[in-house]
Amino acid sequence: MTSHSIHRRLAIAWAYALALLLTTGAMSAALAQEPLPSWRDGPSKQAIVAFVETVTNAGTPDFVPQEDRIAVFDNDGTLWSEQPMYFQIIFALDEVRKMAPQHPEWKTTQPFKAAIERDYAALGQSGAQGLMKILAVTHTNMTTDAFAGKVKAWIASAQHPRFKQHYSKLTFLPMHELLDYLRANGFKVYIVSGGEVAFMRAWTQDAYGIPPEQVIGSTVVTQFKMVDGKPVLMRTPKLDFNDDGPGKPVSIDKFIGRRPIFAFGNSDGDLQMLQWTMAGSGKRFAGLVHHTDAKREWAYDRQSKIGRLDRALDEATQRGWTVVDMANEWNRVYAFETNP
Amino acid sequence: MTSHSIHRRLAIAWAYALALLLTTGAMSAALAQEPLPSWRDGPSKQAIVAFVETVTNAGTPDFVPQEDRIAVFDNDGTLWSEQPMYFQIIFALDEVRKMAPQHPEWKTTQPFKAAIERDYAALGQSGAQGLMKILAVTHTNMTTDAFAGKVKAWIASAQHPRFKQHYSKLTFLPMHELLDYLRANGFKVYIVSGGEVAFMRAWTQDAYGIPPEQVIGSTVVTQFKMVDGKPVLMRTPKLDFNDDGPGKPVSIDKFIGRRPIFAFGNSDGDLQMLQWTMAGSGKRFAGLVHHTDAKREWAYDRQSKIGRLDRALDEATQRGWTVVDMANEWNRVYAFETNP
Repeated sequence: MTSHSIHRRLAIAWAYALALLLTTGAMSAALAQEPLPSWRDGPSKQAIVAFVETVTNAGTPDFVPQEDRIAVFDNDGTLWSEQPMYFQIIFALDEVRKMAPQHPEWKTTQPFKAAIERDYAALGQSGAQGLMKILAVTHTNMTTDAFAGKVKAWIASAQHPRFKQHYSKLTFLPMHELLDYLRANGFKVYIVSGGEVAFMRAWTQDAYGIPPEQVIGSTVVTQFKMVDGKPVLMRTPKLDFNDDGPGKPVSIDKFIGRRPIFAFGNSDGDLQMLQWTMAGSGKRFAGLVHHTDAKREWAYDRQSKIGRLDRALDEATQRGWTVVDMANEWNRVYAFETNP
Repeated sequence: MTSHSIHRRLAIAWAYALALLLTTGAMSAALAQEPLPSWRDGPSKQAIVAFVETVTNAGTPDFVPQEDRIAVFDNDGTLWSEQPMYFQIIFALDEVRKMAPQHPEWKTTQPFKAAIERDYAALGQSGAQGLMKILAVTHTNMTTDAFAGKVKAWIASAQHPRFKQHYSKLTFLPMHELLDYLRANGFKVYIVSGGEVAFMRAWTQDAYGIPPEQVIGSTVVTQFKMVDGKPVLMRTPKLDFNDDGPGKPVSIDKFIGRRPIFAFGNSDGDLQMLQWTMAGSGKRFAGLVHHTDAKREWAYDRQSKIGRLDRALDEATQRGWTVVDMANEWNRVYAFETNP
């Protein structure tokens, strides 16, 4: 082969490589222009995309530096379902049944009898005090490592009664896409939930790609102890912090030390977090997931058994926050749906 | 120019570029081989470098994935000096003097009289209760934003009595280099201090490049309130959490949710954090800054006024943890030293 032909071949290869590069670039750009594929092109998707494009537009007055792009999400009812009851409560009841053989006295003692027999009427009658007893035996008086092990075993095996799927499959596909979209745009995403933090951290990395240090929740008092010369952290049955309602902005300040610019919730327990987020300067975003889809998920509104929703919905309407109509705005709710 | 000569020139250019690339690579490698320039080549530097090289060596049994490379540092006495007293106390006393014109009654009331008159003997006599009174008026009953503003103003203006430098200049240059070295090797570095978290967060980003969400400390109870229709967080005079001693592993678990693999402290208040770090599986590192340098910093040991050091030193010796002899192992202590 002459050097001339080598040169020509090199030139052709170069042109080819350049064309490939340009095509790939164009494809990436096209892909980047279609975020949130499970969201219909409705008001919520438009508001989210408009907000993200605004705060990431360098050189404009609304630009927010990457380190201040903090986004907070409630978990129950916002990132995954919360029916027929909070999944953490289902975990606790499952644990009672698993522990029952070692506690024969539970067969005749409430609220354990009701938990074993799935007698939800009796369980309801035992009230908050009954629930606290169940949470105490299933969540505390053990090391942090032992508790994490129990949650991991449960999340890998237990199935939701309606969908016959692992509970982590009842996370919302459109919200996964939203987390990805925010992360791709330099946001740091946090969970800020009323759920107990150690319960969530056992599975949030796998389910959402959210690492333990970005999960904030309610906490129990934990004690450092030396057991056989080895340090352990013991979980005690004493509540340390209730991360709900006005507790959410408090815990955001305590853990993150910055005010978020983006917040998503679904109930009155998220109201103060949304208010706190929106009260800062510059462009901000507040969203509520509105459960309007009885067919694919559940429909519930102001009269939910699971906590109040009316104040958050009223304030969202009044202030023009984004309210996601799940039935109309989401193409798919769960990733496992075969017939979206 | 013939195509032959073009080809030849291209080949020369290519060889040149390649050589440049290799040279740059070699230079980078050489630079990478000289971390921690303010550390003398003693046992501490060798132990740090050996540890970092071991846990970042992919494909070996001691390799630690990046997300698990959590490093925790005490602040007072570990990242910056703590003499003649904790700098947060100096801030509080400075604030008392700043507020004194609005509180004429303080002229005759202890412990405020002592603070105004710099009467440290009387201040010492007022004990922990006196100190709590001073902390209450200078640190609480104000919003989180107001408090952050006070700390920022102080750190930008107040000067250390001995060195006539801003307090943030009394951070240790070798520890800055250690933070950089760890970050360059994929570690996420946290402060875990007995100091109040909001006091530290007002300046740790500027001083150490550590963002607020990676600063853990003692906390006061904070309350969400609506003031003139705007949400605020009010700092109350009630202690929420004392992040010292056994509190440190508890707060690490609460905030980070992972066990660190690297911990640095300087006193008995850090002992349980070091124990907790070292009790995990795989390779781990524990270090103590030992204040042995009366000339460039301060020399104090087991009999310090500022809290005990003997248990941590004993356990470090017994277990072979790294004890940094400041006088002998640091070329420079502070960046402002002109005659290192």
